[in-house]
Amino acid sequence: MGEFDLIRRYFQRPAAAGVEVGVGDDCAVLVPTPGARWLVSSDMLVEGRHFLSTVDPARLGHKALAVNLSDLAACGATPRGFTLALALPRVDEAWLAGFARGLWALADASGCPLIGGDTTQGPLNLCITVFGEAPPGQALLRSGARVGDEIWASGRLGDARLALEVFRGTVALGGDAFETVRAAMECPTPRLALGQALRGIATAAADVSDGLLGDLGHILAASGVGARLDVDALPRSAVLAAQPAALQRECLLAGGDDYELVFTAPAGARMPDVGVAVTRIGRIEAEPGLRVVDASGAEVRHGLRSFDHFQE
Amino acid sequence: MGEFDLIRRYFQRPAAAGVEVGVGDDCAVLVPTPGARWLVSSDMLVEGRHFLSTVDPARLGHKALAVNLSDLAACGATPRGFTLALALPRVDEAWLAGFARGLWALADASGCPLIGGDTTQGPLNLCITVFGEAPPGQALLRSGARVGDEIWASGRLGDARLALEVFRGTVALGGDAFETVRAAMECPTPRLALGQALRGIATAAADVSDGLLGDLGHILAASGVGARLDVDALPRSAVLAAQPAALQRECLLAGGDDYELVFTAPAGARMPDVGVAVTRIGRIEAEPGLRVVDASGAEVRHGLRSFDHFQE
Repeated sequence: MGEFDLIRRYFQRPAAAGVEVGVGDDCAVLVPTPGARWLVSSDMLVEGRHFLSTVDPARLGHKALAVNLSDLAACGATPRGFTLALALPRVDEAWLAGFARGLWALADASGCPLIGGDTTQGPLNLCITVFGEAPPGQALLRSGARVGDEIWASGRLGDARLALEVFRGTVALGGDAFETVRAAMECPTPRLALGQALRGIATAAADVSDGLLGDLGHILAASGVGARLDVDALPRSAVLAAQPAALQRECLLAGGDDYELVFTAPAGARMPDVGVAVTRIGRIEAEPGLRVVDASGAEVRHGLRSFDHFQE
Repeated sequence: MGEFDLIRRYFQRPAAAGVEVGVGDDCAVLVPTPGARWLVSSDMLVEGRHFLSTVDPARLGHKALAVNLSDLAACGATPRGFTLALALPRVDEAWLAGFARGLWALADASGCPLIGGDTTQGPLNLCITVFGEAPPGQALLRSGARVGDEIWASGRLGDARLALEVFRGTVALGGDAFETVRAAMECPTPRLALGQALRGIATAAADVSDGLLGDLGHILAASGVGARLDVDALPRSAVLAAQPAALQRECLLAGGDDYELVFTAPAGARMPDVGVAVTRIGRIEAEPGLRVVDASGAEVRHGLRSFDHFQE
């Protein structure tokens, strides 16, 4: 099968609403919503770094789009479309069919159509760029946190890292427990509805991709503030809560790959109810730096840091 | 140097006009021109396939953006910005400095700022996604060619392929001649001004990336027409014109990597003068298929086909 047959078979569909020209021309052509701002984000996934070569291709298709949609969610954007650039070592139709199935399922569920891209031969690499919209001045940025704001996290943190430790062989988990955390790692849910509902409520937001310490750290740096973070308040699954305390803290604080939202809001702000739990995990302070404390208020020495692709 | 230092040093600048938020948040935020359509294209470049590992990194930075801008040019779009996702085997500061210099030079010259992206460790891979604008109904598409239209090409074709043959060792060329064709291969010029000037004149357009036969073939397929192409009329450099006839035809018809525009316009249409030559190379016909003829009108049997990443 050639490059163009491959595109036609797996990645081409009739253009969706708001898409004048989709896959198959030099550019896609989109009709913007009058007055809206355009939001753009791009993420590249490399085999062996962002995913294991053995991962179910449908789950990989889901995740490749999910991590990008998570950036739109962190900014409170409404998805409008995405491009997919794909380097494949060879044409493996069973793999492509699975990958495309997972990708389209999330695209359909998110109202975010595939509008263009590129395919080439090369070491397996997936690059997705997503486009979304938000009303002027309402995109959630990292720079808006103010002293006295409360810090919140959505969903549960740390399960993806726990699953990675099982794959690495440092942790043993039984069947159901493993499948729970493995699904968190392989099938993250981008918090699009929550992000959109937080427009006008959250003062700053980011998604937890590199680890809570790092991603909250980006908010603190961009906002010029510090914070106190209650590690015992961090939302976690029953599976993670059954692990040793040090491992829990590592997964919660430095795990990454969570794709939950961490955000700040004025104290007492009413949280939106969109079917996803949000938990208050700390407070913005004037003193620079990020202080991790336990439930008693005592500072926790952790020595953990955020994920960095070039410093390991 | 870590991932975030690398981004700050080489890829972060103050946000350009029309960019509310640039590199450094979860998403970039752009202010669209009221009423304009948004055009998007994405291209992925893999070491060893799209470029040689020995290429000057500044030229590679130029080319990675140029091949994407060429898609905007083919649609008559005005550039607005681009994202860069970059997988690097290691942090090589000299390489990065050169790459960033070539990239920014073309970005500045094209009014197309870098607004976001991603960096990760992995086999060298560059994925750029470009965004542009065009007035409603004025984007140049592949589907508008009509029987009787004339077919045009910009600039000169075939030099990039000739340079590739020199690198492959199948052709020998002296110093100046080699540098000329090598520059065509490594430093293509996206025809942005021509593309924009062709709005309202061209009925269909594409850029020549996979080879003229293939890219003109896309126009014919999308427009439901056929064509007659005069191989002797194809614009070529003096260097290419000095090569054997069969090699010339191979480079002109199936070379690819030209990043010139091939477009159709009604017979007698006045061509815009934007400082780039355009040459009439054929005519759209009702009979399906692409007939290559010589200056005498005799059909040329060529057996050539367009580049396909999975059929070589």
